Amino acid sequence: MCEKLPMQSDGIVRLSKIKVNPEYIDEYMKYAVEVGTTSLETEPGVLTMYAVADKENPFLITILETYASQEAYRSHIASEHFQKYKQGTLHMVDSLQLDDVIPLNPRNKLSNFIE
Amino acid sequence: MCEKLPMQSDGIVRLSKIKVNPEYIDEYMKYAVEVGTTSLETEPGVLTMYAVADKENPFLITILETYASQEAYRSHIASEHFQKYKQGTLHMVDSLQLDDVIPLNPRNKLSNFIE
Repeated sequence: MCEKLPMQSDGIVRLSKIKVNPEYIDEYMKYAVEVGTTSLETEPGVLTMYAVADKENPFLITILETYASQEAYRSHIASEHFQKYKQGTLHMVDSLQLDDVIPLNPRNKLSNFIE
Repeated sequence: MCEKLPMQSDGIVRLSKIKVNPEYIDEYMKYAVEVGTTSLETEPGVLTMYAVADKENPFLITILETYASQEAYRSHIASEHFQKYKQGTLHMVDSLQLDDVIPLNPRNKLSNFIE
C-alpha cells in the first residue's frame, strides 16, 4: 500500500451506483476488483474504493469512493488502470449514477486497504 | 476506541438508506452522529458505521454498517444508545431501506474510527 494524502477541502466522497448487465456480471467483477486494488495500492489520492454488490440483486454495485482532492480524482481517471476498466466494461454497464455525498460527522474516518 | 472483533462468517455488511423528513433534518443529524460515534467507540462488533448525506438531496442518508456477527448486530440494536436514536427519530424518518451487500473483494478492508 502506498502512503495516502490527507483529505483536502476540495476532496470528493462519492457513492457510484452501477447497474451491470447480468450477462456480464462475472467478467465485470474481475475488472472492478482489479481497478479497485490497483487504485488503492498505488494512488496516494485514492483514499477509499470499497465496492459492494447488493445481496438480493447482485448486478447492482455500489462503490464508496473517496478522493483526497480534485487533482487526485483527475489523476485517477487518467490512469492506465482506470482507463482499462472504463473501456473494458463500457458494454457491460446498463447505467451509472455518481452521487456525491457529505459525511455527517467530519471526525468519523475510514482507512481502506488491501489485506 | 474499543478493540474490534474480527469479521465472522455470519457478519453483516449493509447499506441503510434513510429518507428524512426535511423538516427534521438538523435534529436527525444530531441523533445520527451521536449513535454512530457511540457505537464505533464502544461496541467491539460494530466495525463500520459511516453515514453520508447526498449532496443534492441532503435528506437522503446512506449508512455503511458492518457488524462482525449476527450476535454483534443483536447487541447493537438492543443497546441503550441505539434505542435512544431509534425511538427519538421514528417520527423524523419517511422511509428506511436496509440493503445487505457483499464486498466484491474479500481482501479489501475498511477500518472505521472516530478521530
